[in-house]
Amino acid sequence: MSTISVTNRQGIAFVDIDNAPVNLLTINLINELNAFILSLKDDRDTKVVVFKSLNPDFFLAHLDITLINGTPGGQAGCIEFSHLISNLKTMKQLSVAVVDGVARGGGNEFVMACDLAYGTENAFFAQPELYINIPTGGQGAVQFARRLGKGKALQALLTGADYSAEQAEALNIITQAVPSAEMDAFLGEMLPILSAWEVRDIMMYKEIVKTSIENESSGAELELRYFLERAKEEKTQLIINTFLKHGGQTEREAKDMQGIFADTANELNG
Amino acid sequence: MSTISVTNRQGIAFVDIDNAPVNLLTINLINELNAFILSLKDDRDTKVVVFKSLNPDFFLAHLDITLINGTPGGQAGCIEFSHLISNLKTMKQLSVAVVDGVARGGGNEFVMACDLAYGTENAFFAQPELYINIPTGGQGAVQFARRLGKGKALQALLTGADYSAEQAEALNIITQAVPSAEMDAFLGEMLPILSAWEVRDIMMYKEIVKTSIENESSGAELELRYFLERAKEEKTQLIINTFLKHGGQTEREAKDMQGIFADTANELNG
Amino acid sequence: MSTISVTNRQGIAFVDIDNAPVNLLTINLINELNAFILSLKDDRDTKVVVFKSLNPDFFLAHLDITLINGTPGGQAGCIEFSHLISNLKTMKQLSVAVVDGVARGGGNEFVMACDLAYGTENAFFAQPELYINIPTGGQGAVQFARRLGKGKALQALLTGADYSAEQAEALNIITQAVPSAEMDAFLGEMLPILSAWEVRDIMMYKEIVKTSIENESSGAELELRYFLERAKEEKTQLIINTFLKHGGQTEREAKDMQGIFADTANELNG
Repeated sequence: MSTISVTNRQGIAFVDIDNAPVNLLTINLINELNAFILSLKDDRDTKVVVFKSLNPDFFLAHLDITLINGTPGGQAGCIEFSHLISNLKTMKQLSVAVVDGVARGGGNEFVMACDLAYGTENAFFAQPELYINIPTGGQGAVQFARRLGKGKALQALLTGADYSAEQAEALNIITQAVPSAEMDAFLGEMLPILSAWEVRDIMMYKEIVKTSIENESSGAELELRYFLERAKEEKTQLIINTFLKHGGQTEREAKDMQGIFADTANELNG
Repeated sequence: MSTISVTNRQGIAFVDIDNAPVNLLTINLINELNAFILSLKDDRDTKVVVFKSLNPDFFLAHLDITLINGTPGGQAGCIEFSHLISNLKTMKQLSVAVVDGVARGGGNEFVMACDLAYGTENAFFAQPELYINIPTGGQGAVQFARRLGKGKALQALLTGADYSAEQAEALNIITQAVPSAEMDAFLGEMLPILSAWEVRDIMMYKEIVKTSIENESSGAELELRYFLERAKEEKTQLIINTFLKHGGQTEREAKDMQGIFADTANELNG
Repeated sequence: MSTISVTNRQGIAFVDIDNAPVNLLTINLINELNAFILSLKDDRDTKVVVFKSLNPDFFLAHLDITLINGTPGGQAGCIEFSHLISNLKTMKQLSVAVVDGVARGGGNEFVMACDLAYGTENAFFAQPELYINIPTGGQGAVQFARRLGKGKALQALLTGADYSAEQAEALNIITQAVPSAEMDAFLGEMLPILSAWEVRDIMMYKEIVKTSIENESSGAELELRYFLERAKEEKTQLIINTFLKHGGQTEREAKDMQGIFADTANELNG
């Protein structure tokens, strides 16, 4: 593979994207990303996938618009891009976009298809497709409608304006704005928490969240079913006993809940 | 009843929760809360129910996890907790959580099941269930998904992080952050406004809001039906005539709409 | 027409509302607004409709409550108002409310039915209907439920409180707060961008946004269909070729995307 390189470390796959000059979503990059995501289907050791760009200015510029050429080959490429968005949304692992440059059009759609997204002061997010006579094609307008609401979505789509990471956080385009100087420390704390779970934990919460967004009562039913099943597991009893030993359900919870969880995990893993 | 005490004042039931040491949702507390809520079914004098904790550190720590023991008795207890959430969501009166301490797990689910929730600088909100190998079981993940959106919900559920009242307000976990020093004054203004309505007014708006969140056009249909019915009531004509007499539909509305409403109510009630 | 006056300039219809003394939504104003909106049905020259008030204190005070009189004539008037809200929501052109005064009840419902809404420090938004024994009748509660969520919606509906433009922006009641001193400059930049599109562009994005808010996967399907159709248009190829000539898909995008779009448009229109 030439446009992405993958490094695995402690349950996390770091995917570095490098497709000079501006990290376009060319058919080559799309195919490599799709192949990588599909290769994780039965992987239970990889829990988190982190997408970064090696380009100093661009996370992903946008879809290569030479694919938008009206030919069957071009249309097939556009549909592969649409599959990339679907594949991202349905993968079992937790996907994380770390955005330190421009993410417009398909690039922003890629960001919104990830489960979590963090952006720095160098990041910009936009859906300016209408300037080339097309709408968004990777659920950009769909996600803007659902996250920003009618008015802010229409303004964003009809102006194609760039949004900063802070604006994007307020509009739920990304999860959180993180200054670039603090990003490594932030990820250094966040990623070990996320990658400590089993893949089935991540899948469970992704399924409950997705179902609940579609339909509140279906989500509630699914959640309760998982809850009652998990309550019966031996693993649950073991953790609960250890948790109670370390101050669970006592005053220690007021100021040090995470300490109790840490002591519990240490005893069980130690 | 030993874990809750109820005081009625001017259409408001104040429910003080005291279940030492940390206000756990034990089966005893759950049963007493359920019994109290169900007792309000035909009560038209109580319009608002305010839930507070007498514990200085904890609003409700969380569900008593000794219920999560895989036995039939434990499962039955968990299901009673799930009924508590449903009962809260379907009660006719307006429910208000006043949170001045920790509300995690089932405690935060209780808060989100209430109609309104106010939190102080001592309040913390979290769903850390995954640390004991279970998902949320009282619609915590469901509500996070619908209120926070995919990314922020997954981050909250997979880290189990505490959120302050200000963060919780921004994320729609609670209605409003109110400093503890100002809470009494705030409630002193807010509760008389809320408890002045008839129970049927509260039920009407709760039904329209619930229906609209599920389906926009069903909500619009229901709202219009109520509107046309209510427009025909004699009470409506009486209020409108008095409202017009006190400056309704004049320039007075620009700066003193609430004054016109107050003068109208004074004449009608005086 | 006597309560509204319309001026057309460069694809934009400016609708000035003047219905002394407080810009009530009287049956006369409702009928004139409905007639004007319906007259745009086959108009492809008008792309944007801007609603402003000539009254210094009121955008639209609210529905004329003498219509709420329980008579058949009154009910018919209320239903005409309900049609106004539907007509606004389904019109092909982009509707913009510029709010520099009070917008309560039906006035605020009018604002929320518009696609975009901007409010100044003189604007106030509220749904205080319950004070006259009725619920909202123009989707006020519906929109509050969907935009503010359960708790904040119920608080707003049961208190009838006024919200400032900044609060209204945060709650998605309006698109953006703009100081009155800056409104002309703001619109001077925004409106030419919006009115440069074809009516079919505006219709397309309005349809995708509406569909997506109702159902995410229907929205995604519709978006992809439009995308693939539009990709085949000759106009698209022409723009793409010109865009590539002016630095599209190069480093110029990092700092000057809008410049590339402007150069592209200039060459094509020049």
